[in-house]
Amino acid sequence: MTKQVKVLAFDVFGTVVDWHGSIASAVKKLNLAADPNEFASAWRAGYKPAMAQVRSGKLPWTKIDDLHRLILDDVLKQFNITTLSENQIRDLNLIWHRLNPWADTVEGLGRLKSKFTIVTLSNGNLGLLADMAKNAALPWDLILSAEVFRHYKPDPETYLGVAEIFDLSPEAVMLVAAHKDDLVSAKACGLQTAFIERPLEFGPHFTRDDLRQEDFTNYHAKDLNDLARQLGC
Amino acid sequence: MTKQVKVLAFDVFGTVVDWHGSIASAVKKLNLAADPNEFASAWRAGYKPAMAQVRSGKLPWTKIDDLHRLILDDVLKQFNITTLSENQIRDLNLIWHRLNPWADTVEGLGRLKSKFTIVTLSNGNLGLLADMAKNAALPWDLILSAEVFRHYKPDPETYLGVAEIFDLSPEAVMLVAAHKDDLVSAKACGLQTAFIERPLEFGPHFTRDDLRQEDFTNYHAKDLNDLARQLGC
Repeated sequence: MTKQVKVLAFDVFGTVVDWHGSIASAVKKLNLAADPNEFASAWRAGYKPAMAQVRSGKLPWTKIDDLHRLILDDVLKQFNITTLSENQIRDLNLIWHRLNPWADTVEGLGRLKSKFTIVTLSNGNLGLLADMAKNAALPWDLILSAEVFRHYKPDPETYLGVAEIFDLSPEAVMLVAAHKDDLVSAKACGLQTAFIERPLEFGPHFTRDDLRQEDFTNYHAKDLNDLARQLGC
Repeated sequence: MTKQVKVLAFDVFGTVVDWHGSIASAVKKLNLAADPNEFASAWRAGYKPAMAQVRSGKLPWTKIDDLHRLILDDVLKQFNITTLSENQIRDLNLIWHRLNPWADTVEGLGRLKSKFTIVTLSNGNLGLLADMAKNAALPWDLILSAEVFRHYKPDPETYLGVAEIFDLSPEAVMLVAAHKDDLVSAKACGLQTAFIERPLEFGPHFTRDDLRQEDFTNYHAKDLNDLARQLGC
């Protein structure tokens, strides 16, 4: 058996909340002249390149709210959408603060919280994550963000930062994520890992081919209730 | 009427939890050859001077857990206590993670949370505040700490940092504290202020003479339930 885990650190976008469905639904409500699924995918597609600019030092520290806005402005151009006012654009950008949890999320987190300290480890900024938690009743013990460490995942400072904050060795922390690259980076820092299948993360028209169980993860779960069951919660 | 407040930022030690009573009680249980109230007071007395060394740059950034330990080592010397093992000293130092809330705290915070975003703004480190919240069921929307801003109160970066995290102007944030010097500094940064009377903060043998209502505070409350009532929660 692996060393005892004390803290579960959760990736958020895709793992805990359904960014694709929430954004597609907001775009649909606004009656924009764009396919809601394509719009959601395009917005998210700008995310990693934008963070890479911060990670490489090309951009100074910039929080996700501001990166989301930079990308949104590009996406609106790309879809030739010129009907939104500045206030509407600003409000649309805040949709990331109001993403909906997956059906199992709130119950699963509650069960996991009974046995572990549950924290976020997200590239989302603190204000975004706090608004999201309040809106969706996510019962975090602590909200941690790239903003605290001034480093975006997958920089090691983020994974090791969680362990330092709780004065723990890295193997007493487990990253829970629906993304294998995130788990690979966490494992390289000595953290334990749990993969969560989220077949619909990228929308109804996208078939994920990366959901198979891997030898390198400590746990592989269908959802957060399944993880809670496997961890004896 | 003052501008609408969105976020209540709480001082923690003394305002939300009873540090003196919790520490005196822990010292009593350990049967140390020291007056429990005097021991608690001595430990706390080292707190501001230790932070001042960080604020002035004399010490590099040092989190409260480590400052508490430095002070504790001095206090043990001061009281000629040599009976504790390293493990016992380490555990005693963690008493700050398990401080008890005042009788009105959990109910009052729950009421205030229904209308406002409630956050900590404490010099305590994140791990300490998270452990305390889990142990005492404090329902924070977000735990903020000097550790996030790498500045201790009363540095302006802490008060203004709360507003920045929520993308608000300073007057949309209200500091809630049992210490007038903290409120004066917050007000100087443009925050609104609420004073909470905590007559027993410094123990049963100390009479506070600074509980009178001041013109410069926006609210003055007996406890957190009284503040909730005044704010219409």
